[in-house]
Amino acid sequence: MPQDLANKVRIEPATLDDLPELVEMLIELFDLEADFVPDRQKQEDGLRLLLEEPSRGRIFVLRNDHSLLGMVNTLTTISTAEGGFVMLLEDFFILPAHRSQGFGHLLLDYVVNYAKKKNFKRITLLTDKLGDEAQRFFQENGFNFSQMIPMRLSIEPENR
Amino acid sequence: MPQDLANKVRIEPATLDDLPELVEMLIELFDLEADFVPDRQKQEDGLRLLLEEPSRGRIFVLRNDHSLLGMVNTLTTISTAEGGFVMLLEDFFILPAHRSQGFGHLLLDYVVNYAKKKNFKRITLLTDKLGDEAQRFFQENGFNFSQMIPMRLSIEPENR
Repeated sequence: MPQDLANKVRIEPATLDDLPELVEMLIELFDLEADFVPDRQKQEDGLRLLLEEPSRGRIFVLRNDHSLLGMVNTLTTISTAEGGFVMLLEDFFILPAHRSQGFGHLLLDYVVNYAKKKNFKRITLLTDKLGDEAQRFFQENGFNFSQMIPMRLSIEPENR
Repeated sequence: MPQDLANKVRIEPATLDDLPELVEMLIELFDLEADFVPDRQKQEDGLRLLLEEPSRGRIFVLRNDHSLLGMVNTLTTISTAEGGFVMLLEDFFILPAHRSQGFGHLLLDYVVNYAKKKNFKRITLLTDKLGDEAQRFFQENGFNFSQMIPMRLSIEPENR
């Protein structure tokens, strides 16, 4: 990573002050993904919950002196296969105006180094089937396709 | 679920006393899955970590008066898409000698009801691409295929 690029921006854990900008980024991200429908209230609730429970995971932001340029959400869970803590990487997003400058690599490198330092055994992410560009990006950065297929059950709130 | 079936067994959170039997079940399970290589020490470490940190998730076991018949591992994380807590379902296993008697449905029903009561917004699991039987089972129980593809990066310990 060129030093001049790293000098322009910094990466750090998000705080509650970042919440409005993070919500806007997630709405833009979910708008692109087949599996998700943006919902401002849900995105705000989820982000707030995560910011208030850092043991569940960390949101890292890429910022310059003026605003956020990108974000990534790293969730912590346990793997019985790996025998330790593993990371789920979600909501990896660089604002369109700031793409193709290496910021994505900078942010992902940061996360992988963080995972190494914290002794996570594995990073797993889910990419959209249609998102060839994202898949190439993660492949270039060492990620491999898994033989697994995700299945999901949405839980309807109980009638009370 | 026939009442006579439910009378024969009970479902409850696993304890450290169950660890040896749980390890054996995971070794048998991972032996079948393309993505995983069994490793007794790793399975024991992962199970123990989870049993010691119940806020990370719960292992439920299906048992009769003599031994365990099955297990499932439910991990807790946060979704910024759903705006709340979501469950990852892993390590769903019924011992071969006890299959085709409805125990799988019994155990899954238990987990779905637990998720509803605890206000989880969604349950996600990863099934093996080759595991048609497992996929049919989860589909019959309301799970849908996601449009996402998992990618993974194994983290090598840092040289010190």
